[in-house]
Amino acid sequence: METDDLARIIDDYSDVTVTTVCSHSSLQIFHGAKKEGLKTLGIAVNRPPKFYDAFPLGKPDEFILLDSYAELMGLKDELLARNSVIVPHGSFVEYLGADKVVELDVPIFGNRGVLAWESDRKKQREWLESAGIKMPTLIEDPTKIDRPVLVKYQGAKGGRGFFIAKNYDDFEQGLDPTQEYNIQEYVTGTRYYLHYFYSPIQEEGYQLSKGTLQMLSMDRRDETNIDEMYKLGSQEELKRLGIYASFVVTGNVPIVIRESLLPKVLKMGEDVVEKSIELFGGLWGPFCLETIVTDQLEFVVFEISARIVAGTNPFIGGSAYSEMIEPNLSTGVRIGQEIKMARDTGRLGDILS
Amino acid sequence: METDDLARIIDDYSDVTVTTVCSHSSLQIFHGAKKEGLKTLGIAVNRPPKFYDAFPLGKPDEFILLDSYAELMGLKDELLARNSVIVPHGSFVEYLGADKVVELDVPIFGNRGVLAWESDRKKQREWLESAGIKMPTLIEDPTKIDRPVLVKYQGAKGGRGFFIAKNYDDFEQGLDPTQEYNIQEYVTGTRYYLHYFYSPIQEEGYQLSKGTLQMLSMDRRDETNIDEMYKLGSQEELKRLGIYASFVVTGNVPIVIRESLLPKVLKMGEDVVEKSIELFGGLWGPFCLETIVTDQLEFVVFEISARIVAGTNPFIGGSAYSEMIEPNLSTGVRIGQEIKMARDTGRLGDILS
Amino acid sequence: METDDLARIIDDYSDVTVTTVCSHSSLQIFHGAKKEGLKTLGIAVNRPPKFYDAFPLGKPDEFILLDSYAELMGLKDELLARNSVIVPHGSFVEYLGADKVVELDVPIFGNRGVLAWESDRKKQREWLESAGIKMPTLIEDPTKIDRPVLVKYQGAKGGRGFFIAKNYDDFEQGLDPTQEYNIQEYVTGTRYYLHYFYSPIQEEGYQLSKGTLQMLSMDRRDETNIDEMYKLGSQEELKRLGIYASFVVTGNVPIVIRESLLPKVLKMGEDVVEKSIELFGGLWGPFCLETIVTDQLEFVVFEISARIVAGTNPFIGGSAYSEMIEPNLSTGVRIGQEIKMARDTGRLGDILS
Repeated sequence: METDDLARIIDDYSDVTVTTVCSHSSLQIFHGAKKEGLKTLGIAVNRPPKFYDAFPLGKPDEFILLDSYAELMGLKDELLARNSVIVPHGSFVEYLGADKVVELDVPIFGNRGVLAWESDRKKQREWLESAGIKMPTLIEDPTKIDRPVLVKYQGAKGGRGFFIAKNYDDFEQGLDPTQEYNIQEYVTGTRYYLHYFYSPIQEEGYQLSKGTLQMLSMDRRDETNIDEMYKLGSQEELKRLGIYASFVVTGNVPIVIRESLLPKVLKMGEDVVEKSIELFGGLWGPFCLETIVTDQLEFVVFEISARIVAGTNPFIGGSAYSEMIEPNLSTGVRIGQEIKMARDTGRLGDILS
Repeated sequence: METDDLARIIDDYSDVTVTTVCSHSSLQIFHGAKKEGLKTLGIAVNRPPKFYDAFPLGKPDEFILLDSYAELMGLKDELLARNSVIVPHGSFVEYLGADKVVELDVPIFGNRGVLAWESDRKKQREWLESAGIKMPTLIEDPTKIDRPVLVKYQGAKGGRGFFIAKNYDDFEQGLDPTQEYNIQEYVTGTRYYLHYFYSPIQEEGYQLSKGTLQMLSMDRRDETNIDEMYKLGSQEELKRLGIYASFVVTGNVPIVIRESLLPKVLKMGEDVVEKSIELFGGLWGPFCLETIVTDQLEFVVFEISARIVAGTNPFIGGSAYSEMIEPNLSTGVRIGQEIKMARDTGRLGDILS
Repeated sequence: METDDLARIIDDYSDVTVTTVCSHSSLQIFHGAKKEGLKTLGIAVNRPPKFYDAFPLGKPDEFILLDSYAELMGLKDELLARNSVIVPHGSFVEYLGADKVVELDVPIFGNRGVLAWESDRKKQREWLESAGIKMPTLIEDPTKIDRPVLVKYQGAKGGRGFFIAKNYDDFEQGLDPTQEYNIQEYVTGTRYYLHYFYSPIQEEGYQLSKGTLQMLSMDRRDETNIDEMYKLGSQEELKRLGIYASFVVTGNVPIVIRESLLPKVLKMGEDVVEKSIELFGGLWGPFCLETIVTDQLEFVVFEISARIVAGTNPFIGGSAYSEMIEPNLSTGVRIGQEIKMARDTGRLGDILS
């Protein structure tokens, strides 16, 4: 949205209503907003989702019902009338499409300018590598596969559309030639999904050039069937039985990292934010670096998510890290605090786009 | 127990004493009851178990000591005199035997009528499948094994007495022909153990036909040696070394599921409860569906536990889910609340059997 | 330190300052000390570590900066002037060296006499086995390897310097003959890292001959690349691709153990402490038994850590176990409580050395 348009809209807002699509991490977002005393609005398809009734503190005050998420683009006036601030999450972006999110003329928490850099694998790599982040080596020519690789189809979502190849033969046999793909080195190590929060308006804490950075929690994604298929046999044997590895995210497990890696964790977050300011005006609110730690204790980052990730959901009551900021602080609560602080100090323009 | 007998007993109760056998999830049950201000009584063999001294908030107020659990049946008068409400758990049922539990003339929290449906694999399957739950395919004829299967001996407990077979040869070699068994498809995916609570007396929340349903937490069972044996080599290789997979539960790991699966999670719980009302008068209190999520994001339920499971033990201080109901709510605390609420409103008859 | 010297030093202390090296579990130690109202001091190299700014409740009040950890030995006067009590952790011992820790003339929380028994594998085994603890069988003669074994190099740190051998050939091929090693049976099962706290001054709780024992939490160590390498293929296959198993600790996952094993958990802790009193005057404060639970539900202990372990870091906000002692009790808070209680009752001499 143009800065002027945004300023005019915010100016008209008498209050704010935290608004999101009823999926992904919406319980946490609503829970956090309600805890901070903000109004909440859920966007759902067909009927009000009944599952919220089981979690009263995470249930939005009101719902808007659509026939399909495509209708979301037509909600502009209603959302503005309700003083909506949209808190985007992965399913919101997926359902609506990155292009449409950019066009939606309703204030969004965070910088929608990040989408162009995040949704294009090449630009994402350019951003992260220029920030000094190590990523898995790309292999341009499949005949040059000289080590285990992960073949990712373009637009693979939620962990679908990957396969492992250990040589060119595997690649040839596994490939669906109708799809675009990229090939990257398979890095062995342990996975840590690091949940940061960058605030351009908070003054105390871990200082960046124009704001402060927090580390709120960490998780490991749980993926079906790769995570438990080893119990049945080795991948080689299972392939012969017609059972193939898949990488569909089903949940999240809490984890902490060894303390001696924390300086590096914070520094990576810092470098990614500073570079984002340089490249496209910044990355505010929650984001996640998805990393592998090798046995040389090096981080390899295979992806960035520039908004709240579902991996924060184990920590709705707080994490070992957030406990050292404020007891029971979740990413959802932190979002609520940020919006409230911006509202109360007239700085909504600094955290919305 | 006959409804009249139960009514008479409850009528004589001047208060209630939460009573259970000193194992399994007893710390959590006592912790929850004490937190709610209820009296607590532990049943132990030989001497008062010293380990409670390390957990003062989970230590029962008093103990009854037996020479063996077989004596439990003779405790009727003492337990009635103490206004006992027995909160059953897996070890209680295992030590006493399902038949004896049904006969014990002391009020039990939950419906003891569920035992007949739960302890018989065929009736359990009838119940769940008629509720629309998908279960692993049964293979009646071992010569028809055409995919990996799990062979379960009758009465396998705590994860002992399973083996994996990938074809008829495996089956023949692995089978102990002196035991009864059943053969079911080995479903690959990630395991989620879903901890529900159904209350026939609570009015607010996720409504069923006659009460409300909650989702309090989720865990994944940790099983020796299957969970870590892969570190030594593939199962095929280890078999050649004389090391076989076993499935003995040793503990529990906290987990959360992706939010888009929660409507289905709640719906499964709902359907299982509604069917239980139809079949045998209902299933009150905590219960657990033990599921596998496939890479089609479908749930396959391999078992139901119709009472508190040990998988709730990681959440004695609360879970990410219960946090959205009430901070620090464990299944143990929820049981305490239910009993207290029933006592205070004269509805003990609705939650005991 | 000589008892007289210690007594004189403590006598001069007007207060205490909880002091440790800025790594490992220092956030937790400072967080706990601050929560209990104690002063805190961090020892760092070069410059104040910025990462503490992200965790204000875990940030020490002040720093002492060194050019290298070797300079720590020269800090005696400054530390005494600041009334320092050093809370040692694994990195503190590693950076300074066990010998130097013993010589450092500044009060240390816990018994530094334990180091001689812990840092020598033979004495450690003598201590634990004489306490009745089962450890993995040692194999003295490599040509006698008749089962899978773990070959550990002397002084292996943080999980580096292990390899698995399944027979003498593996051993010969894997061995770096320039290093000292020992060979022990590879025990299959699930790993539980048990976090105890023994207090010689607390009176209520699980009683030992001269104090009380607590069980504060449990974790499982997360090790790169062994924990996730199975996703790429079996170890045998990966070896052919030049990818070898490594065991470098990168983090920790929370876990709970089945309740029926808790009596044994407490008893093992009790036996280890009682034997330590007999052998070298005791083991105070936090310690950890690193165990494998076999499918016979037997514990095999492969190591003891005689101080706070990083595995307690997931529980900075409390654990399912500590919740039954006091809400939000971490090992760091418990250390703070112990030091405060000793200070306030004039018993610092009983918990320092």
